[in-house]
Formats: sequence, structure tokens, C-alpha cells
Amino acid sequence: MDDALTLARLNGASHKDFVALLAGTYEHSPWVGERAWPRGPFASLAQLKRTLVEVVTEADRDEQLALLRSHPELAGKAMAAGTLTAESSHEQGKVGLNACTPAELATIARLNALYRERFGFPFMLAVRGPRGDGLTKAQIIATFERRLENHADFEFAEALRNVHRVAELRLDDRFDFRPVLGEQAWDCAELLARHSDPGFAGNGQLTVTYLTDAHRACAAQLVRWMRECGFDDVKIDAVGNVVGVYRAAAPDAKTLLTGSHYDTVRNGGRYDGRLGIFVPLIAVRELSRTGRRLPFALEVVAFAEEEGQRYKATFLGSGALVGQFEPRWLDQVDADGVSMRDAMRHAKLPATARAIARLRRKPADYLGFVEVHIEQGPVLNELGLPLGVVTSINGGVRFAGEVRGMASHAGTTPMTSRRDAAAAVADLAVYLEKRAREAPNLVGTMGMLEVPNGSTNVVPGRCKFTLDIRATTNPVRDACSDDVLAELEAICARRGLSFMIEETMRVAASPSAPEWQARWERAVVALGLPVHRMPSGAGHDAMKIGEVMAQAMLFVRGENAGISHNPLESSNADDMQLAVEAFLQLLDGLAAESEPR
Amino acid sequence: MDDALTLARLNGASHKDFVALLAGTYEHSPWVGERAWPRGPFASLAQLKRTLVEVVTEADRDEQLALLRSHPELAGKAMAAGTLTAESSHEQGKVGLNACTPAELATIARLNALYRERFGFPFMLAVRGPRGDGLTKAQIIATFERRLENHADFEFAEALRNVHRVAELRLDDRFDFRPVLGEQAWDCAELLARHSDPGFAGNGQLTVTYLTDAHRACAAQLVRWMRECGFDDVKIDAVGNVVGVYRAAAPDAKTLLTGSHYDTVRNGGRYDGRLGIFVPLIAVRELSRTGRRLPFALEVVAFAEEEGQRYKATFLGSGALVGQFEPRWLDQVDADGVSMRDAMRHAKLPATARAIARLRRKPADYLGFVEVHIEQGPVLNELGLPLGVVTSINGGVRFAGEVRGMASHAGTTPMTSRRDAAAAVADLAVYLEKRAREAPNLVGTMGMLEVPNGSTNVVPGRCKFTLDIRATTNPVRDACSDDVLAELEAICARRGLSFMIEETMRVAASPSAPEWQARWERAVVALGLPVHRMPSGAGHDAMKIGEVMAQAMLFVRGENAGISHNPLESSNADDMQLAVEAFLQLLDGLAAESEPR
Repeated sequence: MDDALTLARLNGASHKDFVALLAGTYEHSPWVGERAWPRGPFASLAQLKRTLVEVVTEADRDEQLALLRSHPELAGKAMAAGTLTAESSHEQGKVGLNACTPAELATIARLNALYRERFGFPFMLAVRGPRGDGLTKAQIIATFERRLENHADFEFAEALRNVHRVAELRLDDRFDFRPVLGEQAWDCAELLARHSDPGFAGNGQLTVTYLTDAHRACAAQLVRWMRECGFDDVKIDAVGNVVGVYRAAAPDAKTLLTGSHYDTVRNGGRYDGRLGIFVPLIAVRELSRTGRRLPFALEVVAFAEEEGQRYKATFLGSGALVGQFEPRWLDQVDADGVSMRDAMRHAKLPATARAIARLRRKPADYLGFVEVHIEQGPVLNELGLPLGVVTSINGGVRFAGEVRGMASHAGTTPMTSRRDAAAAVADLAVYLEKRAREAPNLVGTMGMLEVPNGSTNVVPGRCKFTLDIRATTNPVRDACSDDVLAELEAICARRGLSFMIEETMRVAASPSAPEWQARWERAVVALGLPVHRMPSGAGHDAMKIGEVMAQAMLFVRGENAGISHNPLESSNADDMQLAVEAFLQLLDGLAAESEPR
Repeated sequence: MDDALTLARLNGASHKDFVALLAGTYEHSPWVGERAWPRGPFASLAQLKRTLVEVVTEADRDEQLALLRSHPELAGKAMAAGTLTAESSHEQGKVGLNACTPAELATIARLNALYRERFGFPFMLAVRGPRGDGLTKAQIIATFERRLENHADFEFAEALRNVHRVAELRLDDRFDFRPVLGEQAWDCAELLARHSDPGFAGNGQLTVTYLTDAHRACAAQLVRWMRECGFDDVKIDAVGNVVGVYRAAAPDAKTLLTGSHYDTVRNGGRYDGRLGIFVPLIAVRELSRTGRRLPFALEVVAFAEEEGQRYKATFLGSGALVGQFEPRWLDQVDADGVSMRDAMRHAKLPATARAIARLRRKPADYLGFVEVHIEQGPVLNELGLPLGVVTSINGGVRFAGEVRGMASHAGTTPMTSRRDAAAAVADLAVYLEKRAREAPNLVGTMGMLEVPNGSTNVVPGRCKFTLDIRATTNPVRDACSDDVLAELEAICARRGLSFMIEETMRVAASPSAPEWQARWERAVVALGLPVHRMPSGAGHDAMKIGEVMAQAMLFVRGENAGISHNPLESSNADDMQLAVEAFLQLLDGLAAESEPR
């Protein structure tokens, strides 16, 4: 293995040689390679990695457990005893685990013991991290402590995911492959995350709300990057969107619109929205680097506002492009009493409804809109898939409700004489879950639940709750919400209770345009990956732009169970590399479509 | 009907005459009298009233509705049109409803319309109120507004209860009967309720916590009343209990202990505890008035502390009599930093553990302990029974728990990938209710329930709850709590969640001494009433005294669904009259037992 491994060499190898070539990627577990061989040949490194994941997923639980147990403990004893494999030793050494202070060693020894006692296998962490160049010891210890809190079956799966990530990095090394485009995206996310609103910056938290100093610093950075990447026209528009155009080969060509938002929720993640900006930026850099022009223009919009944090004007950025800016929003004030108009003036924007109205795009000028986004959910992470193709952005409806019964003494009120508001809401929660499970791509959540001023010894007289119901299509959503409201009525009638319920939000489903969804699917297939179709449970700018033109989205796997709106939101360089490659594939496919046959 | 009706006359009447004699007690509904006749003869007015309640309860829903509809609307149109019966006109006139201001009339007209629209029958209220001498117009309107919020089937029953109360007052008039002893109890409750802690007095709220000025004023009042009632020895003891002894006929006789507490919860009711003081006071007044001595002494203790409000020393008053005062309690401070020792000194009590230890009674000196208490629950109110005999003071156990799952996006987390802590707690609530319903005299309550910092669009990662499980016997309680905890474990295992649960309280059941329970039962039977045996869901002083001697309790019906620890707690003079009579019957029975046969 002095020379880099190639797919050609691997695909041409005998079963025995194949296993030997992959030896050590899955520690002490040659069966992974043995079972992968019949599934070749492999069209891409991504396909090989995916196949190895499938082999492990299909193994039985004892084999998976043996795989986990074949890995050494983190640092400490194993390292001291010299029982680490060359790979493990290299990886753990690379992040400094062979140079721990006695205090660090003691902490790690304690965590190792706790972990093994709780889960029955050693703590498995891809210590080289999402970019591949290593976590800090502090990050490693924090992750260790966090994961000790996980439920056993979740942690088992999380440990296997780390085994796969370790194998991925080992394969990258063996193939002498560096996900350079993914690393660029990762670095962009890090650099942009240096700007955060006051009170959040400096403690690892990220908050960038509309038109704050941090927000304008992000816009300025995006302008610089767009210029560096080779965009022809770059500007900040009247609502603060950063707009870059990479011109087409011919002047009268139509435009492909893409982008996502650069604002964040409070204490949010580095990828939500932003990844959908970095990916086309890096793709244009690739086009520009090779002097390539497409038969269509590419317009990338970094939307200034999607999250509705500083002002109640969610989708302000993409909304402006479809003519939905409400002039009265200019008078809205933030928590500090600053009006949107003043915030815009401070940012040197025109701050007039007229200027904003001019941002409206003519749909006829556009081919459509595509958006890349981190999944913000656990699906791809659980499936071990880097990419997913979105079928629809779910429609949703939300309710705030309250059941009223009669507060009474918990000791003196017989079960048959109760008017227990909380018991009724519990019935409803059970029904909601059962009903939402009955249909695919339907979710129902009771996110808030409270007995106001409840006491241990008082039968609840009131219980407040919320409902959040989302589905790929409006009819599926509405059928569920009708059933849930009917059940609420039935429960209250049966129990002799009253209730009030208020609809607090309703958003229509935005199905992907079939031809655009198909383009993403072909791009994914071209990378050697299986197509996984899935709805988007969260709202996105594509939903807004989708009101006036065809749209389709690509999802990128989120680590940490897909956690989002949280500093733990994470994606790795290999996955982001695939996202950039898929985007380039989509551009290629679209270019090929418009060429004369 | 110029002369007062008598039981002899009624019992001797023909079916037709019987109906005529009762005409008008149940408005326009002669069928009530018709069906009651075969159930005679009646040994007491209480038995007659009870029989009429049974007749109406056994009628079908249409007949009950017709009975409600045969009553006139409150004041307003019916009064103006002169369509009220003589009785209704008299009752409504008596409380001033024939002299309403235009504003009051408009309010009543509005409420009448709302009520009729909501429930389909006119608002039925016994406007003469619990003492029989009339509610104020403000009280009537407040009750009207409150009852408009009731659930339809509850309000239907509440309206019928008011029909019965109206009939009771009409019968009292017709029999020229005044519940004088009950009115005395009612007046005592009113007078004692004039003393309330600062911040509560003056706005109709009642709060009397340990050794405050209001508390000491109550003690002084009780001392005065005891002396006036003819007690031989009256004193305030070292913990503030007011102790009165009515001596026996012979000096070496044993003593019957009775009493209840005069402290209250914050914003509590006027009868909780206190009724159990007033009843024996009035009984002794009757004995003393006629110069009667019993073959045993009667010791009435008005316990200074039962509710544990100012200091964490629940049952301090009765605890002192069984030697359970903890000397360290003297150092406890209240919310204002005042120690119990200083509070005692301020009240001119000795404030030493030694003096308090001397309060311990020798069980051998006592026959046993009986306690009269308002039910604090809905059972007697629902059954239409004034009195109930307690079989056991329930044992209880309480837990505080928390389920931990994984907070995740309500839109992006498929139903199958969730670790929803609230859904698990909902499962538990449903199980708890089902399990508690499986056994008689067992109750289970989830009184507190909360998703901390929940959001509509976040799958709950945490959910906090409490459990309160009580039963007549410890084994029944423990079997339920074992099952509920096992179910919690099973739910969390099935859902991949973790939980913590902490036992916060455990109290043993205190069954009534069979011979003392039988004495109460004989007393109730002697009044012509059916015996209804029931557990006490709440704790009482009898529980504490019961640790060293035989105990048994008598419950008195609470109005307003038995609400307690609330200003709406209420009892009426007729029910309290029966409580005093039952107490006198118990004394008579006990006296007869000790006489030579």
C-alpha cells in the first residue's frame, strides 16, 4: 500500500486481495470487506463507502457489537499498553491524545469506565472530526460527556456511525483523496461564523439576525467571496440579499436561480441556510477556474432573512423576490425599539417600499430555483446516506389549545367524578401520535404541554398544549388535523370537559417540481449514490420562491442526529464535497438538456 | 296549610292528600310527591327529604329536564309578567330580586339568555343560600357567572341540586323547622372567618396560618365560645391548641377526644377543620343547657396547626398530643425569617420542647377519637347525601419524575425516529388513570405536567410530572404504585428514553376503628339517613391521633362539587344541623353502652 489505492485496482482485485486492500478500514473486521466484494464493481469512492455502510447495517447485532468492541478505548490504557492498531494510534496521536496531561488522562479514564459500564463497548469517536484534521481534546471530552447521556440503542447506532466515519477518513487517505471542495465549504462556514450578534459572539454561540453589525459583516464577506469565485455581477440588494450572477455563454439566456439564507436563529448552527450559499459559490469557482460558461446564467442569492428572529417578517429575503414585501413591515420595531426602516437606513439600504418592490423577479426570465440545505433532521444520519432528494416541503398547521375541567382534590375526588384536563390532553397526545404514524410523510407533535400552576395533590383543572401537524400534501395534513380536532371534541365530550383551540399558523405544502426533482436524482445517481426521496419537514426559501417558479431541493446529511437550530449542528467535508459535486452534476445535466441533440 | 305540617300528619295522609301536602315543594311537579308516598312512613324530616331526592334521581332525564324547566327564570321577565309561583316570588323577593336596578336587571337578563342558550333550561339557584336567609344580589350574579362556565352535564346536576335545596327550605318552612344548631355552626364559621392574615383579610379571602395575629384572635374567640358553651376547663396549650373539657358525671371516667384544626391554607375555606370544632362545641352547649353529664368526659381540641403552611410542620397540633413534636422545629423560620420559637414567644407560649412534650396524652385515659370534617370532595354532593361515614383515611405516596428523550425538529423528525418525552408521559398518564380505575377506593393523579421550555415546533426532549396515588389500604396503594412505576420503565424502554423518579412523600393508611365506625353508622341511621361508607382521600388530624388510639370520622357534604382549599368551600345549615345531631346521637349511644343493662 505504498501507492494510493484506485477504484480500478480495487474493482480488479480477487476476493482475497479486495479484503486485503481494505484491511484496517474497519478495525479487526475483515468480514466487512468480504461481504462488500460481491457488490462491486464500484463506480465511485462514495459508492464504495456506501456499500460498506450497507454491509455493516445488514450485519446482525452481535457482529455490530463485535465490530464496536474491536476498537480500542480512547487514549489511556490501550495507548499505554501499545495495543492500538497503527491507524488508531496515528489518529489518536494526531489530535494530541498521546500527549494528555495527567488530569486529562484521569478524565478520559473515568469517562471510559462510565461509558463501558453503561453501554458495554468502548467509546467510539472519529477523533479527526468533520473536516478530517482533528478535534481538540476539549471537543473530544465534551462529546464524550454528551454521549454518555444518550439512550443505549441510540448510542449504539452513533458509535457505528463513528466507525463508518473513521473508515471514510481511512479510505480517503488510502485513495489519496481529499474532499477539497467540501473543505472549502467547511472553511467558509467557520469563517462566516466568526460574525455573531453581541451577547452571543465569543462563547461558541452563533446568532446573526437581520441587519445587525454581524449580519452586515456576513454580507460583506459574501460579496468578497462571490467576487473571488468569479461571479460577474455582485451586489447587495434593497433588503440586504447578496446577489451574484455568473453570466451565461449567450446574453439572452435564461437564468437558474439558487441560494439560501445567511441569517440564523438565536444560538443556531453554522450550516442552516449557509451551506446552500457556499455550495453554488464553490461550484461557480470551479466553472470560472476552467473558464467554463453554461448555456444559462446562474444567479445565487444569499437571502438576508428567513428565520423571522429580529422582526416578524419570516422569508423577508426570498419574499422580496416574489413581490411579497409588506410596506407596513418598515414600521415594525425590534426588541430594542429599532424600526426596520431605521435598521435598513443604518445598513445604507434605500429603506423604501418602492425600492424593495423592484426586487420582484419575472418568473419568465428563470428556468427554476434549486436549493441545497442541511437536512435539519435525523433521516439521512440514521440511514447513513450523505444526500437526499426532497419531494415536497411539507405543509403545516399549528394550534394552541387549552382543555378546561375542574380542579379538585387528588385524594378526595374518586376517579369516576373527575374532570381531569391533563388526562384529556394525554388522551389527545396518544391519539395524535397514533394518527400521525398511520400515514407516511406525516408528523404530529405536541411540543408544549403544561398544567398551569399544577400541584401534586390537585386534579388538573386546566391543561394547555400546542399541536404542530405537517405533511407532504395539504390534504394529508388537513385530514390529520381534522381527525385530531374531532378527537379532541370527542375526548372532552366523553369526559365532560370544555376546550378552546386556536389555529396559530397554516402553511401550504410546496411539492418539488417533478422535472427539477428528477434533475437532482440524476445528479445523485451520477455520484454513485442511491436516491433517497424525502419530504422537508422544515420550511425553506424554496417554499417562497416556489410560489412563482418550479423548485426542488437537495438535502445534505446533518451529524448529531440531524440536530439544528443548535450549535451542535454539523456536517462533514466529505458530505459537503458530494453536495458540491451533485450541484455541478445538476448544472452539467441542465447544460446537456439545452444543447442541440 | 295554615298550621305547620307534621310527620304524623304526612305519614297518615292518603296518596292524594300526601301529594297535596307536598304540592309546590318541587315546582309544578306533583309526580315527585306521587312517587314518594309509597316509600313512607318517614321517621324524620331528613328521611323525607332524602326520599324526595331519590325519587328525582331515579326519574328519567326528560322528567328531570321538565322539572328544571318548570322553574321560572331568575327575576326579570317572569317576575314582571307575574308568572312566578307564590313560593318563587317569595324567595326571589326575599333576596331583593324584585327591587333590582335597571343595570342589575340588564345583567340578569343577559345571563339568563346566555344560560338558556347554553344549557336549554332556566338558571336554577336556591337564592336563600346555605343559611336560608338569602344570598346578596352580588353573590347571586357571581354564582350565575361562575356556573355559566360549567360543563353541561355538571350544570344539569347542579341545577337539580339547587331544586332539592329549594325544596328543603320550603319543607323546613312548611314543617316550621329551623336548623338552629346548624345555623349556630354556620354563624361560628362566619364569625371566625373575620380573622385573616394580612394581605388576605378584607377581600373575602381567608388565610389563618400558625400563630399569626389572626390565628391568635381565632384561639381567643374559641376560648370564649368554649366557656360560653359550658365547658368546665378551657385553656390554650403549649403549641396553641385550644382545649376544652366537659367533665364526666363521675371524676375517674375516661375521656372521649374530639376536635379538628382551626388553621387554614392560604385563601382557604371556612369549614375545613373548623366544622369539626363547632359541632362538638354546639353539642356541649346542648348538654350543658340541659345540665346533662355523660358517663365519660368530652375533650374538644381545636388544633392550632394541621396544614403546614407557615412552617413545615404539618399536624403540629395533633402531633403534639401523640408526642411527635420535633425540638428542631423551633429553629425553623417562616418566609419572613421568624423562627417558630420567636412566634411562640410572641404568642406567650412557653416555646420549649419540654413544655410541648408534656402535651402528650396517655392513650389509656381515652375511649377514642372522633372527628367531624367537611368532605373536601364531590362524593356526598353528587349522591345528594348530607353525611358519610369514613372507613379509612387513605394511605398515599407521591413521586416527582422526569422523562428524558431527545429534543428534535417537529417538522423534520419522522414519527419513527422520535424520542418524545411528553408522548411517554402521556402514555403514563393514560395508564395511571386506567390502573387507578381498576380498584375501588383507589385514586391516581398526575397533578403536575410540564414540558420545560417547550416550543410548538420542537419534539419534547424533557417532560416533568408528578404522581399522587392513594388508597384505603397500604397494599392497594403499593400495588398500584408498583404497577405505575413498572409501566414507566416499560414505556421508556420501548421508546428509547431515560427517566428519573423520586418518592417525595409516603403516608400510611389509617383505617377507622370498626367499633367507632359502627357508632357513627348507628348515629346516622338514628337520623333516618342511609349510611354511606367512604374513604377519606385527604389527611386529617384523626390520622395522627389514630396512631395511638381508635379513631373514626364523620364527613359532612360540601357544596360546589365539594371544592375545598378555596373560598367557594361551603356547607349549609341543614347539613350542619344533621352533623350536630349525629354527634349528639354518637354521645347518646356511647353513654347507653356504658350504662348497666
